[in-house]
Amino acid sequence: MTLLVSGWVAIDTIETPFDRREGLLGGSATCAALAAGLFTDVRLLAAVGDDFPEGYRDQLASTGIDVTGVTPIPGGKTSQWGGRYHYDMNSRDTLYTELGVNADWNPSLPEGWEKSDTIFCAAGDPELQKRLITSLHQPKASMVDSIAFFLETVPEKFRETMGAADFVAINESEARMLAGVPSIAKASAELLKTGTKGMIVKLGEYGAAFRSGHDYFIAPGYPLEEVIDPTGAGDSFAGGFMGYLDSVPEITPAAIRRAIVYGSTVASFQVEDFGPTRLMNLTRKEVDERYRQFGALTHFEVDG
Amino acid sequence: MTLLVSGWVAIDTIETPFDRREGLLGGSATCAALAAGLFTDVRLLAAVGDDFPEGYRDQLASTGIDVTGVTPIPGGKTSQWGGRYHYDMNSRDTLYTELGVNADWNPSLPEGWEKSDTIFCAAGDPELQKRLITSLHQPKASMVDSIAFFLETVPEKFRETMGAADFVAINESEARMLAGVPSIAKASAELLKTGTKGMIVKLGEYGAAFRSGHDYFIAPGYPLEEVIDPTGAGDSFAGGFMGYLDSVPEITPAAIRRAIVYGSTVASFQVEDFGPTRLMNLTRKEVDERYRQFGALTHFEVDG
Repeated sequence: MTLLVSGWVAIDTIETPFDRREGLLGGSATCAALAAGLFTDVRLLAAVGDDFPEGYRDQLASTGIDVTGVTPIPGGKTSQWGGRYHYDMNSRDTLYTELGVNADWNPSLPEGWEKSDTIFCAAGDPELQKRLITSLHQPKASMVDSIAFFLETVPEKFRETMGAADFVAINESEARMLAGVPSIAKASAELLKTGTKGMIVKLGEYGAAFRSGHDYFIAPGYPLEEVIDPTGAGDSFAGGFMGYLDSVPEITPAAIRRAIVYGSTVASFQVEDFGPTRLMNLTRKEVDERYRQFGALTHFEVDG
Repeated sequence: MTLLVSGWVAIDTIETPFDRREGLLGGSATCAALAAGLFTDVRLLAAVGDDFPEGYRDQLASTGIDVTGVTPIPGGKTSQWGGRYHYDMNSRDTLYTELGVNADWNPSLPEGWEKSDTIFCAAGDPELQKRLITSLHQPKASMVDSIAFFLETVPEKFRETMGAADFVAINESEARMLAGVPSIAKASAELLKTGTKGMIVKLGEYGAAFRSGHDYFIAPGYPLEEVIDPTGAGDSFAGGFMGYLDSVPEITPAAIRRAIVYGSTVASFQVEDFGPTRLMNLTRKEVDERYRQFGALTHFEVDG
């Protein structure tokens, strides 16, 4: 099975109240691809500039990700993002965003990639997301993510894209904004009207909620003693979710619930170090072990 | 089995973005006692003024709560609180707090109440909380709650009181402030050093986390389509938790986990109407039914 991940590969500068790193490998597609790679074969579709370090491409490839689709744009500049976290490590300020090659990225799929089994489009232009999803030959599952910028500037375009995707994963505040209602449960129900089959509302450190026409699932976040860098947690969640779903023979409601917990589990590793450092050397065995801990941490007796 | 609940009985004025109510029966002990009363026999210890409506006393008594300890202070005024909620219904501004009779409340226990099986001291003066807990004859379990005011003005006094209580339930922001660390997991571990046996961090709509020397449990919040008035949710949670624990033959780790989910379940009813209106006519059967739904909403397969 193969998952196609599209979106940004970028270079990040990150400041926390305790430390600072420059020139980190970043980008939503990077984190999602690394997370998904723990579960299945991953193809990464992204644009970079001439300036993209060869070492970063090698690092991605060394984890088994197919980087054929990481396309250098001649004369282009790799996207750059800088952020600064507040004391609680939940809220942050964006210091700068340089779109670079992603300002007008309009990729073609490498040959054969239209036969990928599943697809995850990380945050990006909704029209491009929709084109990529519909260019696949009957994928088993598709998912899109987004960010406030697109929901504010082209909400109707994003709602159209949602209708073309099996799953949509967005943040709590974004779901509230897009649906226009304060309750997460109600916002999820409202957003199912776009035609997507499953709404995932990401709650940051508080976990995630999933709503479809026939299921509702809520999972808390994995409790961490220390968060080093929250950047990319939502992308790792989405990558883990879709990577796990790609790996199972059938996408049942129970499999979706397991995928959400696997997504949260991978995200809990992501934040243990700067950028994607922790995911680079993470093993499926470690993920499975924490997944079981997740089960133990959340179990309670329903009868008795 | 009998649970003693102490704290404020008050008169509230509440404004939400959608509605406004004056002269509501309120107070942390009121909500906690009503919630606990769904599970066990409850004795309510609180001070009110001459102005306290007889109808409210009758309402409390009609649910089966022993109101012998709801003491009218001659010439005194019942405590009053006013609050206004923001659009997201999570954050609020306190409009006024009139301490009234609670400014220097220093109660004695009605005869025989020192033999109550368990005790919950809702937010109040930490020295009074400690005196009440230690005045009981070997209670099966004790719990204290608090608010930012006491944690800011007398943190050391509250830490002493924590050491005298089996369980402590405080909000996330209060736990962070008192422990001086941003991680909830770490803050809970730090606060166990006070000597309390179990730290409960209330996460509002996101649920609750429990940490003891040998257990860690996290539960999400029950997803609600609509929140009418969040006031008293944390108090109902605490009351439901202690009421359930009072009702079980033995306080095991599994019973504590069930108590947390029962607390969250009762809190989810509390917010469905203004003040304690919903709790007044709530039945144990309804609570048990939603408890089972809670199980279904949060279940995932750990193996397979």
